[in-house]
Amino acid sequence: MAIVCRSVADLRRVQSDLRATGKTSALVPTMGALHAGHLALVAHAATLADCVVATIFVNPAQFAPNEDLDRYPRQEAEDLEALEAAGVAAVFVPDADEMYGPEDATRLVMEGPALGLEADFRPHFFNGVATVVSRLLLAAMCDVAVFGEKDYQQLLVIKRMVADLKIPVVIHGSPTIREDDGVALSSRNAYLSDEERIRAPELNRALQACRSALHAGVKEDEALIQATERIEAAGFRVDYVAARDADTLGPVTDLANARLLAAAWLGTTRLIDNIGC
Amino acid sequence: MAIVCRSVADLRRVQSDLRATGKTSALVPTMGALHAGHLALVAHAATLADCVVATIFVNPAQFAPNEDLDRYPRQEAEDLEALEAAGVAAVFVPDADEMYGPEDATRLVMEGPALGLEADFRPHFFNGVATVVSRLLLAAMCDVAVFGEKDYQQLLVIKRMVADLKIPVVIHGSPTIREDDGVALSSRNAYLSDEERIRAPELNRALQACRSALHAGVKEDEALIQATERIEAAGFRVDYVAARDADTLGPVTDLANARLLAAAWLGTTRLIDNIGC
Repeated sequence: MAIVCRSVADLRRVQSDLRATGKTSALVPTMGALHAGHLALVAHAATLADCVVATIFVNPAQFAPNEDLDRYPRQEAEDLEALEAAGVAAVFVPDADEMYGPEDATRLVMEGPALGLEADFRPHFFNGVATVVSRLLLAAMCDVAVFGEKDYQQLLVIKRMVADLKIPVVIHGSPTIREDDGVALSSRNAYLSDEERIRAPELNRALQACRSALHAGVKEDEALIQATERIEAAGFRVDYVAARDADTLGPVTDLANARLLAAAWLGTTRLIDNIGC
Repeated sequence: MAIVCRSVADLRRVQSDLRATGKTSALVPTMGALHAGHLALVAHAATLADCVVATIFVNPAQFAPNEDLDRYPRQEAEDLEALEAAGVAAVFVPDADEMYGPEDATRLVMEGPALGLEADFRPHFFNGVATVVSRLLLAAMCDVAVFGEKDYQQLLVIKRMVADLKIPVVIHGSPTIREDDGVALSSRNAYLSDEERIRAPELNRALQACRSALHAGVKEDEALIQATERIEAAGFRVDYVAARDADTLGPVTDLANARLLAAAWLGTTRLIDNIGC
């Protein structure tokens, strides 16, 4: 049975017991509303350590006041059941007070990979992510932690933060899991109407076409405009479509190490996606 | 022989060897220019764990451009000798690149105990302190860490930061060490002229007189004005003289848990001091 920890103290006892038996552990932080993408992270984590610790916490600090904190899907019982079935050793399910006490006075502020792209549209987002992820990593003190490439910029921000703060954990990215039609799995897909869901694959298809165009020698600016137009033609409102260096998110200098990233709205649902080149 | 580590990787190897032999460790972060106050921290640390790890790093992030980063005293060879004689197991002496790499993009921003007092005069200070201390604590991963009460507000900021980020270390404060005439030991005392050094004890004497006045029933405002006037009469330029709650730095609600804090300039040297009530 997976152990459910509600407090950092409980989680530390679990970690201490694991250490005492010489077991390594891998952390999989989530905001719950688990789908096959999260379970792929758990499966990946299980290949990296003796046991897996998952966390479920919908982090208020990474939502702006106008965003979907209140309607973000919450389904703790189902999530615990899925994690149990996936064989995790423990699940950390703190409430907001456990993560941010009443006297809380510490925030992380990120630059570097946290500038541009998502940050242009969600300026609070990466500082909120870094603030909570640093705490989850330090509360759990696992040897490794796994984050999805679906949130590619977030993955780079977390790697940067961990390196800068010298948190003793190794961060692994895990490939995006997709539906058969190429739509990246996301808890927010649940917001889509049936009609929107039919149009959703165009986001990924446009990125794939963009990659083909770049490899065929089409100039970056032109390829990105074509992709943007294709996404808009499917009824999306585009926040950005960009080609960036896969390590720094700076300008592309080598197509073999480029990443194509996009964010766009279908109705009131914001979808993001990215692919390697 | 104390092991001198120049890199986080070296320090981690030392910590790993200590752990392998079941030894606990206590960290004493310093900016070097060691005096008897620092050695008292080492002695205190030695009572809290099996061995002591010291750090020497003059942190650029906690100095404003107009402050004394360049003239801050540096004497690594003497410092290493003193730490060796004090029996430390290892000394971490990183250069600035080791603490802040060229891609560095992470800063801590503190509120709560980091607001007011020192922050009114050194607005960069506590964010810089929190940023570097979090890294030192995480690079060293000692069981406990010791900081001087001489920098009382800094001690509370560090305790707050460690609790908020959930860094697995216990922070201990260590009493201020003083010269026979009551002057708190400080690396910056070396800046004082002979004539200034003669007037320096008035800072502490004024705080002591303030404490006596408060216990004798003098109102807080009046006692603080008297202390300020006494410090000014000794030729200081006063930044602040304040009475605060010893735990929160909020207003005093119980004289038994109050702290008196002052900062003042003698010529171009800024001295700080504080005492319990």
